[in-house]
Amino acid sequence: MDRGRLEAFSDGVFAVAITLLALNLAVKGPGNGTLAHQLGHMWPGYVAYVISFFTIGIIWVNHHSLVSNVVVVTRLLLFLNLVLLLFVVLIPVATATVADYLQAGGFDAKLAVALYGIVLTGMSAGFGGIAEWSLRPGRTLVPVPPDKRWAARLRFMSGGLVYLLVTGCAFLSATVALGLSGLVAVYYVFERTPAAGRIGGTAETDGPAGPAGPAGPPGSQDG
Amino acid sequence: MDRGRLEAFSDGVFAVAITLLALNLAVKGPGNGTLAHQLGHMWPGYVAYVISFFTIGIIWVNHHSLVSNVVVVTRLLLFLNLVLLLFVVLIPVATATVADYLQAGGFDAKLAVALYGIVLTGMSAGFGGIAEWSLRPGRTLVPVPPDKRWAARLRFMSGGLVYLLVTGCAFLSATVALGLSGLVAVYYVFERTPAAGRIGGTAETDGPAGPAGPAGPPGSQDG
Amino acid sequence: MDRGRLEAFSDGVFAVAITLLALNLAVKGPGNGTLAHQLGHMWPGYVAYVISFFTIGIIWVNHHSLVSNVVVVTRLLLFLNLVLLLFVVLIPVATATVADYLQAGGFDAKLAVALYGIVLTGMSAGFGGIAEWSLRPGRTLVPVPPDKRWAARLRFMSGGLVYLLVTGCAFLSATVALGLSGLVAVYYVFERTPAAGRIGGTAETDGPAGPAGPAGPPGSQDG
Amino acid sequence: MDRGRLEAFSDGVFAVAITLLALNLAVKGPGNGTLAHQLGHMWPGYVAYVISFFTIGIIWVNHHSLVSNVVVVTRLLLFLNLVLLLFVVLIPVATATVADYLQAGGFDAKLAVALYGIVLTGMSAGFGGIAEWSLRPGRTLVPVPPDKRWAARLRFMSGGLVYLLVTGCAFLSATVALGLSGLVAVYYVFERTPAAGRIGGTAETDGPAGPAGPAGPPGSQDG
Repeated sequence: MDRGRLEAFSDGVFAVAITLLALNLAVKGPGNGTLAHQLGHMWPGYVAYVISFFTIGIIWVNHHSLVSNVVVVTRLLLFLNLVLLLFVVLIPVATATVADYLQAGGFDAKLAVALYGIVLTGMSAGFGGIAEWSLRPGRTLVPVPPDKRWAARLRFMSGGLVYLLVTGCAFLSATVALGLSGLVAVYYVFERTPAAGRIGGTAETDGPAGPAGPAGPPGSQDG
Repeated sequence: MDRGRLEAFSDGVFAVAITLLALNLAVKGPGNGTLAHQLGHMWPGYVAYVISFFTIGIIWVNHHSLVSNVVVVTRLLLFLNLVLLLFVVLIPVATATVADYLQAGGFDAKLAVALYGIVLTGMSAGFGGIAEWSLRPGRTLVPVPPDKRWAARLRFMSGGLVYLLVTGCAFLSATVALGLSGLVAVYYVFERTPAAGRIGGTAETDGPAGPAGPAGPPGSQDG
Repeated sequence: MDRGRLEAFSDGVFAVAITLLALNLAVKGPGNGTLAHQLGHMWPGYVAYVISFFTIGIIWVNHHSLVSNVVVVTRLLLFLNLVLLLFVVLIPVATATVADYLQAGGFDAKLAVALYGIVLTGMSAGFGGIAEWSLRPGRTLVPVPPDKRWAARLRFMSGGLVYLLVTGCAFLSATVALGLSGLVAVYYVFERTPAAGRIGGTAETDGPAGPAGPAGPPGSQDG
Repeated sequence: MDRGRLEAFSDGVFAVAITLLALNLAVKGPGNGTLAHQLGHMWPGYVAYVISFFTIGIIWVNHHSLVSNVVVVTRLLLFLNLVLLLFVVLIPVATATVADYLQAGGFDAKLAVALYGIVLTGMSAGFGGIAEWSLRPGRTLVPVPPDKRWAARLRFMSGGLVYLLVTGCAFLSATVALGLSGLVAVYYVFERTPAAGRIGGTAETDGPAGPAGPAGPPGSQDG
């Protein structure tokens, strides 16, 4: 198993999942009230769409940073990657549930956002599994030194902890919990060197990714 | 982050979005009037399908021209690319809304086409963000000389301005506005050297894209 | 524009279109008669699914044979490729219409199969456009000699003529016309050297496609 | 035809099919009972989702192991690959049918799981066809010695036999048969060297898949 096909398959899943998100925003067509009225009542759908879109986008960026540093693809890595994708693929459905139930209010709205939090927590756990796997010696191009492993762990575990907080917080206030998951996305968009990017030292923000094949070691090969 | 995976993910999103467009043309099945009658009433769907199909196709071509010239992939570029894709992914839903409401007429038809214009304006803005990013020194293989930057800006901003015009024009006449967005697609299909293609000087129309890896600098590496 | 990304985007569209075909076979769920009864009435769906699946599969194979021989990617080629994909993407919808209306009988069944024939004819025309483009000197690795161009044209035009026949024949008998489109697929599966495969002399059936990059000229580079 | 595009197309189909699985878990929205009640009644959907997700994931891993060892891509291989994909693409629909009918009980539940078994048996047969094809001399990088061919055959046929057992067993107990198909997935996740992985001797679990192009013969080229 080479890394390129792991990336190609994962990219396909990320691409389909992120595109399916938009289907939740379809209106019902004529005969269901004016279009303006329908659109006005869909605001939870827009908010949830944007949050989920950037959440999947960011996890894709971090997935790539992590995988591009991997030198050996084992069956365990493939299994951990499937666990990550199992939850990524659930994001469009969880997003649709939030969009449908947030305005209904009551326990249904809280449960919908809690479900969303569980799916994102599962995604984080899958990602954490891959990151943990990559910390072992000989698995990445630029290994993480033993004394920096706990720092790396803290970084990739913190996202999962926030999503766990989203899940719990949802039972207090669905809107606040959804906003919190949005803040995670905003944080990662503006954070210059993400947790995953620094694991193994991939200096993705300043190194040139040359267009020609034999450029340099990290990330020089297209998938 | 290497350019290849940015292209692979974007290609996946473009491919799924362009394929989902056709789903809007599904008929309702037996028991909803004769098939001929159903098909006859779907003409706004066919028109919107063809316009959206070529619009996505052209933005894909221009996206590639632009990205193939990039030598360094930063987090900011990835974020700008996500903004572009955020709107690309909305095109199938906006197209379906136009198809559903154009024949209804009245304010709903106008609002549907205005929405379509907003989505295309957003897409243009996302593309313009990437193009603007690429104008800075050291980011592209063949840099744009400082004295030609405003000319390049004008070229990639003009598409967005037309889509803004589509949005405003929709409130006067939904059909005229939709036709205008179709003219943009026709223009870009026949325009030999598109705005994006000339940024950085990628001579895509006359240079051979060799099949072997070590061919030449621009566009010589498959994604 | 390099050939690899043209292939990657087209492959994505082919893959999504071929996968969406299966969605037509979904049953309605409990409360719509026994499952056995529902499945028994869906036989036109199974037949149409298998025909469309292999039709898309074969056009994908031929598309690759043709494109792998191309040495220069022009805007015109990209436009012709979009015309091909415009019709490929309609196949799942046309297949669903056949599956829904074939048992209804009468004019609706005939019209449904005629529509299917039109979509396949359009696909053939798009493919023929690419093939015609590739006949010009300097566009393919192994050019077609001038005296063999008409033979090549006849080969890639014959598929389109049969689909035109399917369209006309549908108004006489929907079932016979559908069967005829199935025969085209069967013919191309068993035909050892397809029309497209021989254009430009790509000897795809006997030449080894080496796994390493610098293997040989035709088809040695992965997309 | 080169191997890379065979992989890219197949990866696309696998990725779309695995993502569509999750759509079966969508809830009906407000006005259909409490969300908690709806979610509680969907447990067959969750179970079927997880089983199908890992089943597709595993067949993807095995498909890659097998194909990465192939040195010559013939039309017959492409046809056998299409047969495999024909059934892979049916998995989301078969999974939805199981999810819908398992709780209904009676013959419908049994028939739904039997259908699921038939689709998985077909997928296994398609995979077995590719594996059988690869046993012939000159088709793989590391050929299987003649005296080990029957051992290889037994390994890739055993999966199909279990799925045939699932199909038959479904008429006795739908739940037990579904559980059996889940055990196959669990078995392949934990099985260190799968049937397909060992055909042709691809030592995928211990060999480094180098990130640079000119690494080594098996699996050194990204798709």
